[in-house]
Amino acid sequence: MPASPIRKLVVYSEEAKKKGIRVYHLNIGQPDIPTPSVALDAVKNLNLDVLEYSHSAGNESYRRKLAGFYRELGINVDHSEILITTGGSEAILFALMSCVNPGEEVITPEPFYANYNGFSVTAGVKIVPVTSSIENDFALPPVAEIERKITEKTKGIIICNPNNPTGYLYSQEELLRIREIVKRHDLFLFADEAYREFIYDGARHISAMQLEGIEQNTILVDSVSKRYSECGIRIGALVTRNKEIISTALKFAQARLSPPGLGQIAAEASIATPHDYFEKVNKEYKARRDFMVDALNKMPGVYCPRPRGAFYAVARLPVDDSEKFARWLLEEFSFKGQTVMVAPASGFYSTPGLGKNEVRIAYVLRIDDLRNAMETLEEALKVYPGRI
Amino acid sequence: MPASPIRKLVVYSEEAKKKGIRVYHLNIGQPDIPTPSVALDAVKNLNLDVLEYSHSAGNESYRRKLAGFYRELGINVDHSEILITTGGSEAILFALMSCVNPGEEVITPEPFYANYNGFSVTAGVKIVPVTSSIENDFALPPVAEIERKITEKTKGIIICNPNNPTGYLYSQEELLRIREIVKRHDLFLFADEAYREFIYDGARHISAMQLEGIEQNTILVDSVSKRYSECGIRIGALVTRNKEIISTALKFAQARLSPPGLGQIAAEASIATPHDYFEKVNKEYKARRDFMVDALNKMPGVYCPRPRGAFYAVARLPVDDSEKFARWLLEEFSFKGQTVMVAPASGFYSTPGLGKNEVRIAYVLRIDDLRNAMETLEEALKVYPGRI
Repeated sequence: MPASPIRKLVVYSEEAKKKGIRVYHLNIGQPDIPTPSVALDAVKNLNLDVLEYSHSAGNESYRRKLAGFYRELGINVDHSEILITTGGSEAILFALMSCVNPGEEVITPEPFYANYNGFSVTAGVKIVPVTSSIENDFALPPVAEIERKITEKTKGIIICNPNNPTGYLYSQEELLRIREIVKRHDLFLFADEAYREFIYDGARHISAMQLEGIEQNTILVDSVSKRYSECGIRIGALVTRNKEIISTALKFAQARLSPPGLGQIAAEASIATPHDYFEKVNKEYKARRDFMVDALNKMPGVYCPRPRGAFYAVARLPVDDSEKFARWLLEEFSFKGQTVMVAPASGFYSTPGLGKNEVRIAYVLRIDDLRNAMETLEEALKVYPGRI
Repeated sequence: MPASPIRKLVVYSEEAKKKGIRVYHLNIGQPDIPTPSVALDAVKNLNLDVLEYSHSAGNESYRRKLAGFYRELGINVDHSEILITTGGSEAILFALMSCVNPGEEVITPEPFYANYNGFSVTAGVKIVPVTSSIENDFALPPVAEIERKITEKTKGIIICNPNNPTGYLYSQEELLRIREIVKRHDLFLFADEAYREFIYDGARHISAMQLEGIEQNTILVDSVSKRYSECGIRIGALVTRNKEIISTALKFAQARLSPPGLGQIAAEASIATPHDYFEKVNKEYKARRDFMVDALNKMPGVYCPRPRGAFYAVARLPVDDSEKFARWLLEEFSFKGQTVMVAPASGFYSTPGLGKNEVRIAYVLRIDDLRNAMETLEEALKVYPGRI
C-alpha cells in the first residue's frame, strides 16, 4: 500500500506545533460534537462481571433495535438482515470479500473515501474510478461514462451518499440511474451511508435500500461513528436482504469472533437518542457549512460547491499543487501565529493527476475557529509562491 | 470458506436445549472467570464527552504501559514496537498481510487454531500443516519433518504457545529448534501467545520474543481476551522489533482507523491487575484440568495428555468419527437429562482424515459442572453405537 500524503503532513503539523504555531485541523473527520448522554450513561452503568464474546453477528438485542431504527427511516429490514461490524470499515471489507472475487472490479465515482483503497487491497479487488467533476459540483457522472467502465470483471458499484469527501447528496433521479445500471448489468450496489444523518437545506436522504427491484443486489454499509459522534467505539453494520451475502459475511465475522462488546452497549443505547439531538447537530453543521463555503467563495480564485450533506467540502484553490501547498502551509507559513492543515484532494482520486488543485475541508471546528482558519487560508493564498 | 462443523453442532445443541436437556459446553473458549475489577471500574468511571478515534496504533498511554508489562516478563520492547489491534484476530491478520504475499506459504504444526484458516483465506496465504501427534502428547514435530515442508514459497512459521487446541507448552529446547529453522531459512516466526498466563505445574513460559538472534524475524501476537477474561472488548496487540513490519501493519491499521476505544480503556486499566488474580485463576484451572484429565483417562479406551498450558486438552476417544459422535451426543443421547457438546478435532487439522477420533475439550466449567459433564461423557461412550 502506498503511503498516504496525509501521513507525511501529520509529521509537518507536529513540527509546526513544536514551533508554537496553532494549527487548525481542517483535514480530519473527527466531529467535536458530544456523544449522546444515553450512550455515555449506558457505559458508565455497565452491569457485567465478565466481558464476554458477543454473537459474531452482534448482540441480538442491538440488531433488533437497529432494525427498528431503519424501519423508522423507511428501510424495511429485520434483525436477521443485519450484521454488526467493527466500524463501517469492516462492513465495507466484509461486503467486498463476500461479493467480489480477487482480481474482479468495482466501479466508484471519484473523488472517493481514500480508505476504500486499503480495503480493496485486502480483498484483492480492483477499484475502477469514474470521474465526477467540481465543474458540476460532483454530480453523478453520466450513465454512459459509468457503463463504459463495465467489463466482464465488474462485480459492483460503490457509492458513498452523502459523499465523503465532496459532501454531495445524490438526488432521487441520480439514484434511479444507478439502479438501472445495477439492474441492467446485474451488479452489486455497495452503499456507504455513514453520513445519512447530516443533510441540509431541507433535502431528503434516499437510501439505496429503498430502491425497488434491486433488493438482492444492495448492501448497505453503515456506522454509528458520525451519527452519534462515536468514532472511537468502532461499531458499524452490514445490512442486506440477500441472505447468501449475510451468510458468507458471517463466516468472516466468525473468524474474527465478535464485534467490540463495550461499543455495542453504547451503540444500542444510542438508538434512544432524542430527535432534538440531531436537530441541534444539523443546525450547527449547517451554520458552519454556510460560513465556510461563503468565506471560501469570497476568496479570489477559489471555488467551493455548497454540499447538502456530510461535513466535508472539496474546494478548488488557485495553487499549482495542493500537496505542496498543504506542506508549505505547515512548514513555511503562519499568520498571527496560526496556520491550517488541509487534505490534498489528490488522495481521493485514483486517476493520476486529478485533484491537484483541490483540497478537502472538514467543517468540524466551531465557527470562531473556522473564522480564524478561513482568514489564515485567505492570507496564505495571497502569498503562496506556487499560486496560479 | 467452508462451513465449520461446530456451527452445525450449535444448531443441534439449541434443539437439545429446546427438548429440556441441559447441555454442558465443553466446546468453547469463553472463560467463566470474572474480569478484574480494575478494568470494570475504569469503564464505569468513563470520563469522556466524545468517544473519539484513538491513534491507529492504539493509545500511546496504553502502549507505554503494555511495553512495561512485557519488560516485566523479560520481553524487552518499547511502545513504538507495539501496535494495538482489534483482538488477537486482527494481529494475526495484519501480521500475515504485512509479511507474506498472496500465494506464499506459512507452516504451522497441526492441530491448530481453526480461525487461522479464515485469516489465511483473507490474506491469500496458504497454511501448510506439519502434523504433531497425540501419541507423543503433541510435542513439536521433528525438525526434519518441518524442513521437508519448506519450499521457495515458505515465508514463515506460526506457533501457538501454549497451544490452542492441545494445551501443549513448548520447552526451551523445542523453541531453540524452531529458532534454528527460522534462522537457517530466514523465515518469519509468528508467535501466538494469547494463553501465556495459563501455565501449570511450575512450568515456565518462554516467549518467542526472548529467542536471541531472530529479533527481526519474530512477530508476537497477543490478546487480553483470555489473560483478563475480556474476550468481548476485542483488544490485542502485534509486537515486533522489526520496524518495517510495524510500519506496514500500521498502514492496514490506518485503513481501519483505530482499535476499539472503550476496550482500550479497560485493557489499559487491566495492567494494574494484582498478581494474586492470576494465582487464583491458575489454581482454579489447574484443579479443573487435573479433575478432567484424570476423569478422561479413567474411561476405558480414552487417552488425554495432561497439558501444561491454556485451558484446553485434546482427547482420543474410542469412536468411529468424532463429528458423528458430537452430533449424536446432542441429537440422540442424554443421561439424567444432561448431555455434553465437544469440538471434533478434525476442524483443527488441515490434513484430511486426521483428528477423526479426537475431540477438543475446554475446561472452562466449574468442577461441579465438569463432574456432571465427565459422568455424562462416560455413559455416552458406553452406549454410542459407533464405538470402536
